[in-house]
Amino acid sequence: MPEGLDELRYHGGNLNAARRSFPNAPDPWIDLSTGINPVPYPVGIVAPSAWTKLPEPCGLAELEAAARAANGAKPSTEIVAASGTQALIQWLPHVFPARRVGILGFTYGEHEERWLAAGAKVSTVEALADLVAFDVGVVVNPNNPDGRTFPPDDLAEIAKTLAQRLGLLIVDEAFMDALGRRSSLVPRLPEAGALVLRSFGKIYGLSGLRLGFAVASPEVGGMLRRAIGPWAVSGPAIEIGRRALTDGSWLKETVARLSDEAARLDRLLQSAGFEIVGGTPLFRLAQHKGARAFFERLGRAGILSRPFQAKPDWLRFGIPHAPAEWERLEAALDIGEGSIHGGPQ
Amino acid sequence: MPEGLDELRYHGGNLNAARRSFPNAPDPWIDLSTGINPVPYPVGIVAPSAWTKLPEPCGLAELEAAARAANGAKPSTEIVAASGTQALIQWLPHVFPARRVGILGFTYGEHEERWLAAGAKVSTVEALADLVAFDVGVVVNPNNPDGRTFPPDDLAEIAKTLAQRLGLLIVDEAFMDALGRRSSLVPRLPEAGALVLRSFGKIYGLSGLRLGFAVASPEVGGMLRRAIGPWAVSGPAIEIGRRALTDGSWLKETVARLSDEAARLDRLLQSAGFEIVGGTPLFRLAQHKGARAFFERLGRAGILSRPFQAKPDWLRFGIPHAPAEWERLEAALDIGEGSIHGGPQ
Repeated sequence: MPEGLDELRYHGGNLNAARRSFPNAPDPWIDLSTGINPVPYPVGIVAPSAWTKLPEPCGLAELEAAARAANGAKPSTEIVAASGTQALIQWLPHVFPARRVGILGFTYGEHEERWLAAGAKVSTVEALADLVAFDVGVVVNPNNPDGRTFPPDDLAEIAKTLAQRLGLLIVDEAFMDALGRRSSLVPRLPEAGALVLRSFGKIYGLSGLRLGFAVASPEVGGMLRRAIGPWAVSGPAIEIGRRALTDGSWLKETVARLSDEAARLDRLLQSAGFEIVGGTPLFRLAQHKGARAFFERLGRAGILSRPFQAKPDWLRFGIPHAPAEWERLEAALDIGEGSIHGGPQ
Repeated sequence: MPEGLDELRYHGGNLNAARRSFPNAPDPWIDLSTGINPVPYPVGIVAPSAWTKLPEPCGLAELEAAARAANGAKPSTEIVAASGTQALIQWLPHVFPARRVGILGFTYGEHEERWLAAGAKVSTVEALADLVAFDVGVVVNPNNPDGRTFPPDDLAEIAKTLAQRLGLLIVDEAFMDALGRRSSLVPRLPEAGALVLRSFGKIYGLSGLRLGFAVASPEVGGMLRRAIGPWAVSGPAIEIGRRALTDGSWLKETVARLSDEAARLDRLLQSAGFEIVGGTPLFRLAQHKGARAFFERLGRAGILSRPFQAKPDWLRFGIPHAPAEWERLEAALDIGEGSIHGGPQ
């Protein structure tokens, strides 16, 4: 296993570690290790005052109102903007101390990591209904990396049950924008026992901006807002986020394009002998008994995919965009050679 | 007292609240309620990847190395970048739970507020040496709002004493850049019992960027780093911060200019009958028995200064820059009229 590979496992996106692991790979790398839209929302001109002034409460309120409208949240629901959902994930175990946490797995590792670091006992469960047995339940919807989805009706039911014991259901909707409002729990809120996390940077292709939201009841949202404190979101994130969240046509076109490109990626991976396990329009999860060897072959070709330590047969792929990226991916997967169904050498 | 004035008290910088309080004031407002350099470091061109990519560990390490060099921190000291020092202030009571916290007052209110919110017993003390009696001691150096400074020797001594009881001295050096390295505790670190906070946005005039640092021993710094988690700093903040922190000549010229302008502001306020209590090159604290009436007179003229609920005779002023700002301030202070020494009407 190349040196530095461990760094790549969980999060992806660490191209410098990839360069160390595959020193002879061609540059530029194609980073397919994340689920970030490769065609970002146009940053445009940022007002000088967004950089220079301490962000004012009214600007933040406008951003949160844009997020409310974009996601169909009721006026009685609290929306809290933060510098990325990771910042909220870091705070959750401190704001809602829980001893027993249930996480619907296999899923994104950061939730488990943060609850464990806070001293909670974390169990991974396989069925959604099992989450009612815990103080805090965590579900990623659609799930990362397999794209499994959970009906909002079922989630609302579990949140209600947890609320009766002052528990909380955390629903991480990081990749929900690509699915649409009917799949989201947000329009059903507020529910006393539910908190939804929404990413901004993934679908808008601006993950360096650091912007994310918590959507919850006023009580639960208020606790998070007090925890993260004032000026938690940068001026540029407030300005660009508000502009993007009010641009419904951009989102609609983006989801349509990503869906087409995801289907193209599925066909390509299937041609290389992969089975498509699932995914969202922002990433595809593919299975192959030679997945580990494919990861290394792609790495040597300067293409970073995402392996999973616990699932050696899986690779997750973000969506390529530029024609040259498709060509390099196709070439690296060695489509059309005799060896495809036997896996890579 | 005009409606909304309470919102203005602590933090300043809330121009919309000022507009509500003084609806007939001319626009644009001159915001002297903060201690932010009015001549920002040039943002320049931000690389597209800073917006689009999840910030990589090596970019963050380069930013932290630039902060280390700029502040004269030893290689054995840990530097942790965060999205503003406020984000660190929010975390401190959770990372270092303390029952008894001593704060050297009168000072910036956010420290007390966050420790109280976390359930600590907070005492305000008047002498630095009194801080050794607590689990955690907090001192702002130079102090905000009065500019009082504390010798690094004395601070190191107190940190050593606190460390013997596993206590911690938190030194908030938010305004230290304007004073220079010899006044800072940073070059003395690591000390097991000391943690220094450094702001970026104030002296570089980029408070909307959200960037700040904690400087501490590897153990203490590591605890904070794990608390704030990955991707805590935005891509633009990493890029611009690194550029600014390696531009020593800009900082030198800026401090010289601010010092000149601060002296000019002192003369102006003295002409209006104020006594200068203290300050730093980024703000001046002035005393007048008619300070409250001055605040309102300035507000009606579209100039926002910073009052203090507990100190009705005090007003704090940021440093004006543009000639028109100096003219409007001079006119609003009514310099040269017979009424100056009697205070405003």
